[in-house]
Amino acid sequence: MFDLVETWLKQQQSSLIAMLESFEPSAKFNHDPWSYHSHGGGLTCVLEAGELFERAGVNFSSIQGARLPVSATEKRPELEGLPFKAMGLSMVVHPRNPFVPTCHANFRLISVTHGEKNVWWFGGGFDLTPYYGYDEDCVTWHRAAKEACDQLNPSLYPQFKQQCDDYFYLPHRDEPRGIGGIFFDDLNEYGFEACFDFMQQAAQAFQNAYAEIVTRRKASEYTEAQREFMCYRRGRYVEFNLLYDRGTLFGIQSKGRTESILMSMPPSVNWRYQWSPEKDSEEARLYAHYLMPKDWLNEAISDNA
Amino acid sequence: MFDLVETWLKQQQSSLIAMLESFEPSAKFNHDPWSYHSHGGGLTCVLEAGELFERAGVNFSSIQGARLPVSATEKRPELEGLPFKAMGLSMVVHPRNPFVPTCHANFRLISVTHGEKNVWWFGGGFDLTPYYGYDEDCVTWHRAAKEACDQLNPSLYPQFKQQCDDYFYLPHRDEPRGIGGIFFDDLNEYGFEACFDFMQQAAQAFQNAYAEIVTRRKASEYTEAQREFMCYRRGRYVEFNLLYDRGTLFGIQSKGRTESILMSMPPSVNWRYQWSPEKDSEEARLYAHYLMPKDWLNEAISDNA
Repeated sequence: MFDLVETWLKQQQSSLIAMLESFEPSAKFNHDPWSYHSHGGGLTCVLEAGELFERAGVNFSSIQGARLPVSATEKRPELEGLPFKAMGLSMVVHPRNPFVPTCHANFRLISVTHGEKNVWWFGGGFDLTPYYGYDEDCVTWHRAAKEACDQLNPSLYPQFKQQCDDYFYLPHRDEPRGIGGIFFDDLNEYGFEACFDFMQQAAQAFQNAYAEIVTRRKASEYTEAQREFMCYRRGRYVEFNLLYDRGTLFGIQSKGRTESILMSMPPSVNWRYQWSPEKDSEEARLYAHYLMPKDWLNEAISDNA
Repeated sequence: MFDLVETWLKQQQSSLIAMLESFEPSAKFNHDPWSYHSHGGGLTCVLEAGELFERAGVNFSSIQGARLPVSATEKRPELEGLPFKAMGLSMVVHPRNPFVPTCHANFRLISVTHGEKNVWWFGGGFDLTPYYGYDEDCVTWHRAAKEACDQLNPSLYPQFKQQCDDYFYLPHRDEPRGIGGIFFDDLNEYGFEACFDFMQQAAQAFQNAYAEIVTRRKASEYTEAQREFMCYRRGRYVEFNLLYDRGTLFGIQSKGRTESILMSMPPSVNWRYQWSPEKDSEEARLYAHYLMPKDWLNEAISDNA
């Protein structure tokens, strides 16, 4: 079971890297294998200072631990403290062009030995963080998510979308991180084969949707002010990841590999006191039209799509 | 008691603002009064885009709360959940010039009604975060701290310095935030008058020491690479404040005023994967000579002081 998933996660990592590199005239990912206190390890791949991608990280890890942390399962508190195996793939992309959105995805399998039983579950999802919104991109993104979910069960997309909106939210700003996507945890009720198949569909859907959006936006010309706005908005990404993100906090608290965990940090970020966009500007439109939970697949498509 | 301290904190705020503005040819602080859910309020003063200071914040606040949070007192768990008053002054300065260090200070008074008793304590301290180290500045800084402490009790400086080194530490990097200073909490054993007098001495010592160091470094010429290093090191400041700083986390969790709490964020920050300084460079010297707990007042002064 683990071997199958591990093989697939590594293939998916290569596939995501190939997709991102296909947009770059010359920049390549740096491949950095590492080990975790002799209980497993991973392969962190980072591309920096690309023409299109200012920073992109695709991280595979597979570790064993003596005690499952409470943050690893929401629904199974009885498993806390038991020996576990965890493997996963994470990806965060910070483009240089403010019209290309930031994306994040994670796919993981956790397994715990509980007496004579082996309890396992999948978790993961993907979400999109635009700086300038396009309804067309939101529809591409959410349609891909829905199609992957529907193959397992049509009830899942609304549920996983809601969980994504709930999770990627900054209470101190009263703002969503972006336009969401899907987020799921403790997934095992359909059996291993169907769940694993769903994970593969979801990962491929994510990859295709992001490639489509990047292709659509990559040649957009931008001004220094638009780039400034992107760097300002990236501050929210930092705030979310360091204040709330369970994966980040779990990694830091469990003495994980800091540079792999913090590959999600944007390459350059600005903070400004009490900044807000000018009324009716394109920047104001991000807040007014995109930074809120929406049923993107049933919304009327507005003018700029 | 509260009126006296509140009057002093406001005077000290004005005095710190005047000191910082005296270095700026034209930039002035913006004064922003605010109220906290109708239970108090504050005055946040921020200067941005100055010639010398890229961002500086001096924040006064005075609030009442229905339930003392556990993070507010280390030594008095029996007071958790009781009604409280808290007032304080915080200052964070992010200079533009990488040879001028970042500074942080906080001075606060907390009081809790416990049955018929009124329990109070002072807390606070100040610490310095250089990008390029100078022994001379470390000595100025720690001598000011020691002199303020010695007036109350000569045993305090080593104790408060140790607490500062322990607190401003990033476990996931195994690095101190900077060269320390003093940090104290739950201070009341010398009686109100002596403790309040110490707070005033400490705040004045901090102000004088920082002004002296800024004066010494402000005309230093710097390269784009040195400025890059500063922006990279500022990432550690962000990581510390959002992952560990009790004041920041308490403020965020208690639905404080986000823009006042996050005035501590640096104005521009870079992250780079697996970056490390070149061997024997000035940047390597920061790590090798300054980012470690040291008894600055008894160290041999090295060559670049």
